[in-house]
Amino acid sequence: MKKWVYSFHEGDGKNKRLLGGKGANLCEMTQIGLHVPPGFVISTEACLAFLGEPAQTLPPGLMEQVRAGITLLEKETGKSFGGRDNPLFVSVRSGSALSMPGMMDTILNLGLNEESMQGLISKTGNLRFAYDSYRRFIQLFGKIALGIPEDAFDTGFSQVKDAAGITDDIDLSADHLAEISQRYREIVSAKTKQPFPQDPYEQLEIAIKAVFLSWMGKRAVDYRREFGITPDMANGTAVNIVAMVFGNMGNDSATGVAFTRDPGTGENVLFGEYLVNAQGEDVVAGIRTPRPIAALQDEMPGIYQELLLLRRQLEDHYREVQDFEFTIEKGVLYCLQTRNGKMNATALVRTSVEMVQSGYIDKKTALLRIQPEMLEQLIYPHLDPQAAVTPIAHGLPASPGAACGIAVFNADRAEQRGMQGEKVILVREETKPEDIHGFFASQGILTSRGGKTSHAAVVARGMGKPCVAGAGGIVVDGQRNSATAGDVEFHEGTLITIDGSTGSVYLGRVPMIEAAFSPELSLLLSWADEMARLKVMANADTPKDAEIAVSFGAMGIGLCRTERMFNASDRLPIMVEMIVAENENDRKNALSRLLPIQREDFKGILQVMGFRPVTIRLLDPPIHEFLPQEQQLTDEIQNLRNLRKVMLGIQTLSESVDFLYRTRDVHPRIQKFADPGLVDEVIKNKEAMLRKVRGLHEINPMLGHRGVRLGLTFPEIYTMQIRAVLEAAAECQIEGLPVNPQIMVPQVCTAQELKRVKEWVEEIKTEVEAQYTVSLSFRFGSMLEVVRACMRAENLAEEAEFFSFGTNDLTQATFSFSREDAENKFLPLYNMSHILQDNPFEVLDVKGVGLLMEHAIKWGRQTRPEMEVGICGEHGGHPASIRFCHKIGLTYVSCSAPRIPVARLAAAHAAIFEGEEIQDRSL
Amino acid sequence: MKKWVYSFHEGDGKNKRLLGGKGANLCEMTQIGLHVPPGFVISTEACLAFLGEPAQTLPPGLMEQVRAGITLLEKETGKSFGGRDNPLFVSVRSGSALSMPGMMDTILNLGLNEESMQGLISKTGNLRFAYDSYRRFIQLFGKIALGIPEDAFDTGFSQVKDAAGITDDIDLSADHLAEISQRYREIVSAKTKQPFPQDPYEQLEIAIKAVFLSWMGKRAVDYRREFGITPDMANGTAVNIVAMVFGNMGNDSATGVAFTRDPGTGENVLFGEYLVNAQGEDVVAGIRTPRPIAALQDEMPGIYQELLLLRRQLEDHYREVQDFEFTIEKGVLYCLQTRNGKMNATALVRTSVEMVQSGYIDKKTALLRIQPEMLEQLIYPHLDPQAAVTPIAHGLPASPGAACGIAVFNADRAEQRGMQGEKVILVREETKPEDIHGFFASQGILTSRGGKTSHAAVVARGMGKPCVAGAGGIVVDGQRNSATAGDVEFHEGTLITIDGSTGSVYLGRVPMIEAAFSPELSLLLSWADEMARLKVMANADTPKDAEIAVSFGAMGIGLCRTERMFNASDRLPIMVEMIVAENENDRKNALSRLLPIQREDFKGILQVMGFRPVTIRLLDPPIHEFLPQEQQLTDEIQNLRNLRKVMLGIQTLSESVDFLYRTRDVHPRIQKFADPGLVDEVIKNKEAMLRKVRGLHEINPMLGHRGVRLGLTFPEIYTMQIRAVLEAAAECQIEGLPVNPQIMVPQVCTAQELKRVKEWVEEIKTEVEAQYTVSLSFRFGSMLEVVRACMRAENLAEEAEFFSFGTNDLTQATFSFSREDAENKFLPLYNMSHILQDNPFEVLDVKGVGLLMEHAIKWGRQTRPEMEVGICGEHGGHPASIRFCHKIGLTYVSCSAPRIPVARLAAAHAAIFEGEEIQDRSL
Repeated sequence: MKKWVYSFHEGDGKNKRLLGGKGANLCEMTQIGLHVPPGFVISTEACLAFLGEPAQTLPPGLMEQVRAGITLLEKETGKSFGGRDNPLFVSVRSGSALSMPGMMDTILNLGLNEESMQGLISKTGNLRFAYDSYRRFIQLFGKIALGIPEDAFDTGFSQVKDAAGITDDIDLSADHLAEISQRYREIVSAKTKQPFPQDPYEQLEIAIKAVFLSWMGKRAVDYRREFGITPDMANGTAVNIVAMVFGNMGNDSATGVAFTRDPGTGENVLFGEYLVNAQGEDVVAGIRTPRPIAALQDEMPGIYQELLLLRRQLEDHYREVQDFEFTIEKGVLYCLQTRNGKMNATALVRTSVEMVQSGYIDKKTALLRIQPEMLEQLIYPHLDPQAAVTPIAHGLPASPGAACGIAVFNADRAEQRGMQGEKVILVREETKPEDIHGFFASQGILTSRGGKTSHAAVVARGMGKPCVAGAGGIVVDGQRNSATAGDVEFHEGTLITIDGSTGSVYLGRVPMIEAAFSPELSLLLSWADEMARLKVMANADTPKDAEIAVSFGAMGIGLCRTERMFNASDRLPIMVEMIVAENENDRKNALSRLLPIQREDFKGILQVMGFRPVTIRLLDPPIHEFLPQEQQLTDEIQNLRNLRKVMLGIQTLSESVDFLYRTRDVHPRIQKFADPGLVDEVIKNKEAMLRKVRGLHEINPMLGHRGVRLGLTFPEIYTMQIRAVLEAAAECQIEGLPVNPQIMVPQVCTAQELKRVKEWVEEIKTEVEAQYTVSLSFRFGSMLEVVRACMRAENLAEEAEFFSFGTNDLTQATFSFSREDAENKFLPLYNMSHILQDNPFEVLDVKGVGLLMEHAIKWGRQTRPEMEVGICGEHGGHPASIRFCHKIGLTYVSCSAPRIPVARLAAAHAAIFEGEEIQDRSL
Repeated sequence: MKKWVYSFHEGDGKNKRLLGGKGANLCEMTQIGLHVPPGFVISTEACLAFLGEPAQTLPPGLMEQVRAGITLLEKETGKSFGGRDNPLFVSVRSGSALSMPGMMDTILNLGLNEESMQGLISKTGNLRFAYDSYRRFIQLFGKIALGIPEDAFDTGFSQVKDAAGITDDIDLSADHLAEISQRYREIVSAKTKQPFPQDPYEQLEIAIKAVFLSWMGKRAVDYRREFGITPDMANGTAVNIVAMVFGNMGNDSATGVAFTRDPGTGENVLFGEYLVNAQGEDVVAGIRTPRPIAALQDEMPGIYQELLLLRRQLEDHYREVQDFEFTIEKGVLYCLQTRNGKMNATALVRTSVEMVQSGYIDKKTALLRIQPEMLEQLIYPHLDPQAAVTPIAHGLPASPGAACGIAVFNADRAEQRGMQGEKVILVREETKPEDIHGFFASQGILTSRGGKTSHAAVVARGMGKPCVAGAGGIVVDGQRNSATAGDVEFHEGTLITIDGSTGSVYLGRVPMIEAAFSPELSLLLSWADEMARLKVMANADTPKDAEIAVSFGAMGIGLCRTERMFNASDRLPIMVEMIVAENENDRKNALSRLLPIQREDFKGILQVMGFRPVTIRLLDPPIHEFLPQEQQLTDEIQNLRNLRKVMLGIQTLSESVDFLYRTRDVHPRIQKFADPGLVDEVIKNKEAMLRKVRGLHEINPMLGHRGVRLGLTFPEIYTMQIRAVLEAAAECQIEGLPVNPQIMVPQVCTAQELKRVKEWVEEIKTEVEAQYTVSLSFRFGSMLEVVRACMRAENLAEEAEFFSFGTNDLTQATFSFSREDAENKFLPLYNMSHILQDNPFEVLDVKGVGLLMEHAIKWGRQTRPEMEVGICGEHGGHPASIRFCHKIGLTYVSCSAPRIPVARLAAAHAAIFEGEEIQDRSL
């Protein structure tokens, strides 16, 4: 006979696949001496056997073993299951190998029936408690095991409460609760056409099947798909059957949830909440707002000391922050469950670092405990404290960080609007496991009820999304899709801001600012740097960007986009002058005025970066990007012509008043209406500009006249930029500053292009060295963002001293997707229908673009074995892509400043995971 | 002492590297018994030794060996070099290993001086001949060896001619010629500040040096660069020194040029021209218009028989059509030179085939004798005989084929305008070797003087460009860049058409039609097919295209573009209706009307092709290509609004008369001015269209929503097309016709896309098979035109049964060049400055795109070893690209119908050259 059932004394605490996470843990907890209520586990094998049977019958022998298990429980507790005297009740709880909070359904107080009710009443003398338990059990069993909609029970409950004029559940009397349970039984009978089952073993069998079935329920399947949980990670759910202990046996009883450390800040203190005279679900579901754990120190000092001891036991054993549930039954503390605590990034960083410092774990463990993406939370902007804004409501700071989006009042709508690309805040009275898809789609969560360990708070923290919970000042009307906060009413679509670090809620968008680095994070990342082989550089275009990048730990600048410098308002007119110039001389004239500006730009950046490399990319975009749009110009010219007609009396003012209105800010001089000649002049200039714009028009600008193609056509642009770089370097050297500039050529497709530019670089170097009497040291390299450059890397490496993959453009070219067109037109469909698993512009396409990169590196290093190769596309900051970059032997990744911490940690992970196969989703 | 000089009796006739083509040939001719004037060759080694010396001195011993050579000539001829009695004169002629017509400078009558003049006069008693020779010698020597500009002499010549009132050179008397030679000597003295050299050996030494130097002259260097002649192919020029024979010794003397067969038609008859009482240069330079060789049969019947014998001797020995020069000196025939005849494609095909048939050569030799590109001449359109056009002039049909372009009157301008992409006809009085760059840039050549063997004719034929020569009715004024033909005057920029097959010249563009296949070409290509491994398919979109393709020997259709079918005027409105449809139903409705149309299209093509494969590509371009342009619509709407205002009396008619004018053909109903409501309706429809156009706008349409991306977004389009293909196949099968359709998916980047489309194909196949009660057999394949598809070929091959490289798109994506933008903006510069050797859209980029293809084939065949892989880009018809396609193991190439003969021959060449390394110019 196959063994399906394991008592907590015998189950292998490490075998989560067999016993589920909770089951294994209960065994482990029992076996390490924690005070856990007695119980046993039905294995996941039983679940799979059950689900595998077409008729879905329990496997042979299972119920016999369950009965034997119950018999043991009866022995340990001295109670009898379903008995009239001293009855035994059990909880029935799911638990798979991986923790899926709220995913599975749980039934409490199983074993209650008319008979055992009498036993419970006579044993405890607490009529109220008994009827409370009874009505809870009927409700849960009815909902979960028999599939009766929950609101059927809610209505019955509210009717009795309203009739009694009671607002707080705790004020309900035994009679009220008896009435409620009577109503609940009637509801069950009416819905199932059968009386409520009285045999406790029948109850148990129905409950076990319901748990098993829930493994294939929509929520569970959705969750597994969303998080990519495959059968080899978790397959089937175990069932945990545990003797009930009661937190609702009076004021010497309580129930609570706690973390061994503060999961919001990481502070090394016991953190949690409890409710006196309540059962566990009251805390989790947020129906009553619980008290902070510290209050227990006064209310039950002895128990509080036991909790501190428990906390110590848990951490000594698990060496990881624990999230545990406890119940106090008539002054006795039971630990019902423990699991690794889900924390936000701040807390995870702090606790991990402190656990290294206290010797609990080693650095590698600490690094691996944090998913790199989480660190972005720490970098995301928080609300600007200077912003003069008044919150419309306050709630609990349930998951730190700030978020802004339109209010949406149910999960389905949140999913819909989120899919359409809107930023959404999910606003609910309270959230339930079935809302999970709404969480995925939202920027943040706001609830009007529930505490820091409510479903909304726990799930939001797990996802790293800001959450304000229990904002009691807000009245949510889910039916009408609106809410009121005092005088303020808001609806679906209203822009709101929440601050999960303070619990404040604001109407509209509140200004946000950058986050600062904690010392723990700095320390952790310094360990990451020790571990990593990949260097992490920044994409930065200004001295200020460079400073921020350095403060985030950038080891250099991997991409400095020189064109961004031309967009500033003092430079753009000169740039435009250069572009519209009709001959080389006029162009050179304009460029000669840009030269000192660029030189100062570069000098500023070089000064910040010092010895660190600064990779300066020569002009990349097509020059028409600096000019006005054709449509704008034709409109302006049309308006000016009409204006002129009015001025000359050809057209009456009334006819053209709309044109006048539209042209009023085209040119200040026109406002005077003084001189049609002035208007003519402006028209003439604009027409010249229009001709230029039309001449520069391109059918496919992404594949057009840009980068080195432009550089070779108008040599004066690149030579100006090269001179600016080298003069900046020379001036820094003269001032005694170490500098490390690198000149990088964009859009290269053949070594010939590099050769030409390199000749200019050599000439200018000689001139600048003579001019400043210095010896310049710098490097010359090439972007690899054109497919042909990758194919010819062996050849390019003869000219280039380094390569940098521009994976944004390279991805566009490799897929033949224009990013903007693709993301607007077909990419959502491709992702939704799994033609592509990911957006290749966010997640590096390992099998296509990645394979090309791998070959390019190989070919390039055939020519120049020690060649440094980096990546400066958006992917440079994406952990999975970083792991791939490490694998194919890149020297560095370069990413935007806020992604640097993520990238540093990801680089360390990549090194730690070296040799392990990369799970790749691309198709 | 190194041997520099070889007499014709001792030189190795095969050693062209040492003796040059002409020199080796003269040796060979002498040694096989042809009547060649005695002479010797100075080796190319001497040339290189001379050029290698910084001071450019003749190598030691050379002049001694030359003197010995001359001494031998004196013995053989009984004449004395520079002597007063019976003087010996020689020609000095360059000749490198490869024939470069007109590239090198030649000096005749060397040895003439005041002394030998007397000898010549006393020997021949022909004063006129003597002075004619003398003035020619001074002129040539002055120009070539002493570098005196030619027009200096021309002026002197014309002055004497004009003063004497003479138009034809032959009418000049001995006195006139004596006067001219006197003037020439004065010109030389004036220009060189020295008397004309009298010592014949001094003359010889100067001439030898001039020949050597001409190897490094601009014209020679240009030619070698243009035709890719590297030092291993030809290095240095030899000098041929030959005893002069005189065609201008009276009316029993003559000079001529002949081909052993007609180089224009290939007809097996002696072909050529001669001038009585003239020297060879008179024929080549086209200064006098010569007589056809047949006339010699009457004038000198004996000599004519000797020429027929000579022709037989030449072909028996060389087994290739010979182009030879001859001179008749006082009734004695000398053969001065022979070389392989440059012929047009028609002649080359015919002579090659006939030489196989007569056993001269084998098939392989015949195939290799023809450059595949030449066959395009045979396919290019010629003038439509139905066109009612009247020529403005007639000339000699000097190189067949027709061409149209703007008249340009000098080579520099032709080069300039040709570089800018204009089609140019070079119009000259006569051309000279220094015009060669103008030939490269022109579509065709027109001269007003010179015969079929004039410089213009020979060079144009060699290049396969149409040429009309000696069109005497045209007076060219090179100074004013214009010409007159009777009453007609035309200028630079005037569009003209020339027909090199008839010699006619037309003003404007004359309609052209396709050429027909000759039986010889069909036979030759059938030999090519036997030899080739690559199959040749056609790109064809209609039954008519398919018929033409089959007539050109297409073995199937490699690319049938279904979208072209939608552009016909009866289909476009339905297509537009489908595109603007607001929902799937309306779209399906429109498509259901397109279905029978497409089915008939496919049926027509399948019927033509029968058992041959027909590869049908599903819709490829973005759908906005079927809609009007945004600008056009906004203009129309603006105009309609103005019209409406007029109709409603808001605006006066006079104000808007221009709008009315411009909108008059927008919509026929509006012309009635009856009902502003009608205008409103039209405006509304146009606005709806405008919204659609704007909604469909793409930033980079080349990388946009097209091909399979579009197909997956709107499944009803592809499913309609698939159904049309399969129904067409079913109907053919029912009619008992064998068919072989192949469905091809464009723009694929991942196997998932193929998988989806394949599911549709399978479903529709089942339906169609049931509907028609047939069993369908067809194949399903993928374009490889996206880089990622190449990288994932291994994976794609699981779904695709064949691949077809779309190298147009693949080249764009690999280079990140948008073709239209590149060719307009920077590609000319890139080619001119040799950053890229070729236009990659014309010549397959072997090292980039080609390398990618090579990998894709390898990866694809890892999955499906026998997979057929083709190419259907423009490159499929380019010989060098075809050779590469053969090398990397493609199954077939597909190209436009007119390229099929080229491709078939190129495929044979590829097979013949298999294993030999491909010379690749890409960078």
